Amino acid sequence: MINIGLIGFGNVGQGVYEILTQNTTLLTQRVGQPIRITKIAVRSPKKYQNLIPQDLLTTDVTDILTNPDIDIVVEVMGGETPALDYICTALNHKKYVVTANKEVVSKHKKTFFSLAKENGVDIYFEASVGGGIPIIRSLKVGLAANRIDHIAGILNGTTNYMLTKIEAEQQPFDIILKKAQDAGFAEADPTMDVDGIDAAHKLVILAAVAFKADVQLDDIYHEGIRHIELADIQHADALGYKIKLLALGHRETETQLSLRVHPTLIPKVHLLANINNEFNAAYISGNAVGEVLLSGKGAGGSPTGSAVVSDIIDIAFDISQKMNRRNLETELHQVTVSPITKTSNQYYIRLQATDTPQILEKITHELSQASISIQTLSQPTPQDGTAEIIIITHQSTEGNFNATIKKINDLDNISVINTIRVGLGRKIDLIRY
Amino acid sequence: MINIGLIGFGNVGQGVYEILTQNTTLLTQRVGQPIRITKIAVRSPKKYQNLIPQDLLTTDVTDILTNPDIDIVVEVMGGETPALDYICTALNHKKYVVTANKEVVSKHKKTFFSLAKENGVDIYFEASVGGGIPIIRSLKVGLAANRIDHIAGILNGTTNYMLTKIEAEQQPFDIILKKAQDAGFAEADPTMDVDGIDAAHKLVILAAVAFKADVQLDDIYHEGIRHIELADIQHADALGYKIKLLALGHRETETQLSLRVHPTLIPKVHLLANINNEFNAAYISGNAVGEVLLSGKGAGGSPTGSAVVSDIIDIAFDISQKMNRRNLETELHQVTVSPITKTSNQYYIRLQATDTPQILEKITHELSQASISIQTLSQPTPQDGTAEIIIITHQSTEGNFNATIKKINDLDNISVINTIRVGLGRKIDLIRY
Repeated sequence: MINIGLIGFGNVGQGVYEILTQNTTLLTQRVGQPIRITKIAVRSPKKYQNLIPQDLLTTDVTDILTNPDIDIVVEVMGGETPALDYICTALNHKKYVVTANKEVVSKHKKTFFSLAKENGVDIYFEASVGGGIPIIRSLKVGLAANRIDHIAGILNGTTNYMLTKIEAEQQPFDIILKKAQDAGFAEADPTMDVDGIDAAHKLVILAAVAFKADVQLDDIYHEGIRHIELADIQHADALGYKIKLLALGHRETETQLSLRVHPTLIPKVHLLANINNEFNAAYISGNAVGEVLLSGKGAGGSPTGSAVVSDIIDIAFDISQKMNRRNLETELHQVTVSPITKTSNQYYIRLQATDTPQILEKITHELSQASISIQTLSQPTPQDGTAEIIIITHQSTEGNFNATIKKINDLDNISVINTIRVGLGRKIDLIRY
Repeated sequence: MINIGLIGFGNVGQGVYEILTQNTTLLTQRVGQPIRITKIAVRSPKKYQNLIPQDLLTTDVTDILTNPDIDIVVEVMGGETPALDYICTALNHKKYVVTANKEVVSKHKKTFFSLAKENGVDIYFEASVGGGIPIIRSLKVGLAANRIDHIAGILNGTTNYMLTKIEAEQQPFDIILKKAQDAGFAEADPTMDVDGIDAAHKLVILAAVAFKADVQLDDIYHEGIRHIELADIQHADALGYKIKLLALGHRETETQLSLRVHPTLIPKVHLLANINNEFNAAYISGNAVGEVLLSGKGAGGSPTGSAVVSDIIDIAFDISQKMNRRNLETELHQVTVSPITKTSNQYYIRLQATDTPQILEKITHELSQASISIQTLSQPTPQDGTAEIIIITHQSTEGNFNATIKKINDLDNISVINTIRVGLGRKIDLIRY
């Protein structure tokens, strides 16, 4: 019998409970012994009195954390505190920990890994990135032969849902945000999602797993989707691109990474461009396997519960055999993260200009002076004497590009409305899908 | 030190060797000790004298199979015999086995699993399905919480490459086959690939892993792509579909499966329709996670080597800890596979008819008599008095459909040119991508 203590009983906790209840026979066969939820710590037991047997519930988390009968502590409450304390206490009591909490793992991974090692146990966190998609397991095991070189992820379901809907319904950001909030796909305060912070936390975790990098949220440039207008999505579409909020990780050298979260134009022929609605995806490039794409639902009680319970099963094997397999691999290294200004990208530029014959000449002059060449330039029919010009450039470093855009914006009769990065980074532009 | 004995040194064997050589430092860190190729058994050592140190080579496979210094036997020679013998001998000598050999695993999985269990070791075969994509690992570990309900796979790179090229180059099957053979993407005798046998072997393996089913190749209906004409691909495209060779596995009840390999029309909006060229993919539906898609290169020395070496790493952990984790899970069950005539599908029908006013009436009469309703019917402009009619039906059982098609074909002035199944099977028609 493997005994589980659950901390938190919201969406994910209930998903875990349902999977363990519904798939009992199958899971017992798989593990070789039953998995049982022994205790669930919640703040208000009454809230759940029609959902589960009341004797499972406790308001005292030490009933779980220091309970010698409990083998695995499953933390699904979310947030940094008190989850940090709970996880540390559990590890110090030699309990395996499974968590779905991206924030606490992103911030305190190093502490957790070393506590786990000291105590001969481990912490599993598949559910913290990409919901039910086995991204972390694939990086650690299924693709273990590889040096991972690149990661490009759609890791935030809310923004992917919104970008899909802005295009499908041809309505602007604000209206779609309101609808997403009403439908439960976005929170009342959408900052974490729409400003790219949620995706950046997940990228911190993937950087630890894929690159063994010890980085923090502040090391990662992150830009959200608030400035993406319907017009940009329409122009991108006309040029053969979709706009997605990507979390990008490139291994530049052994100790230097590029890590960033920002909206990106992706050619429609790439699979990532076809990941829609609340689906997530991770595109991984390894030096042996080449390109791999993993996709599935990135949120929700049942998909996230799938990841939590799969972690539990993996640990259950270890416990059955009284051993620990994986925490050899958890040593993190100091790395340098390239500043965004040093990265090289293609760019989409949307300009408005009074329609004079010299405009294009002035713009192309500035780009040419900065050695930024133009891949495509299109100019839809001008209205009211104001022309909209859409340019997609070839590669430039971001610093050079920004300085040039400032110069163009300072020209008379021209204003730069928006700029968005294009492609998955220079090293993986060769798209085979 | 983990000692590897390699049997075979073709494409995959060389891929394994290169990965172990190139990623030595990284792999040693990951495993906690070095992995070394100790012996390579080949028929003609001279062939490889410029590739590897000659003292690694042996022509006597017992140098590996019964060598007490060897921990893991890696079988990458392919084919049923003598691989079967070699694997059994290795397992009986308590060696872990990693194989990339779909044929021998498909045919003898049950023997291997029980020998492995008896001897306290295990057999790993990630590389036998989907090259470097961690499909089997995901089913066994990352998605372990789930009852797997459906699998739809593009598991044969040759046919996927050919179908992509037929469309891209607008040339018929025979010319594209010749080109694929010249380019090394198809073999001189392409039977295994183009007739769906290779994909069926892989489906046998996936059925064992996902459904714990003990089935054989003969239990699986398989139909290849020889009868797919350029015209079918064009008509499908016009109607919003791509044609792919799919391996389909549906869990109908606890003991009844539908397992089949055949060309299938897939709506372009589905990710599987966007898996092109030599890429493979597995679309998996589990009762907790919902839908997951895994994609990557399904063949080639390096991607397949990635899977082999990832298996080696997984085993290396077990060996370091002197234990065995996974062979609890290898018990297979007897199941019934539904005959193809009992399955229910949508169908694409291409007919040629002399252009008389009564033709459509006669066809729709026959369909209506059989309770097969029509989803779309299109009739491109007739040429030379001969009309081509394209119909996509709603669901029908295959037996009913076949009988009806026979009746239609027996009508005067009508001939049925081709029929192809549509969609992923009735239970997963709700496509969210």
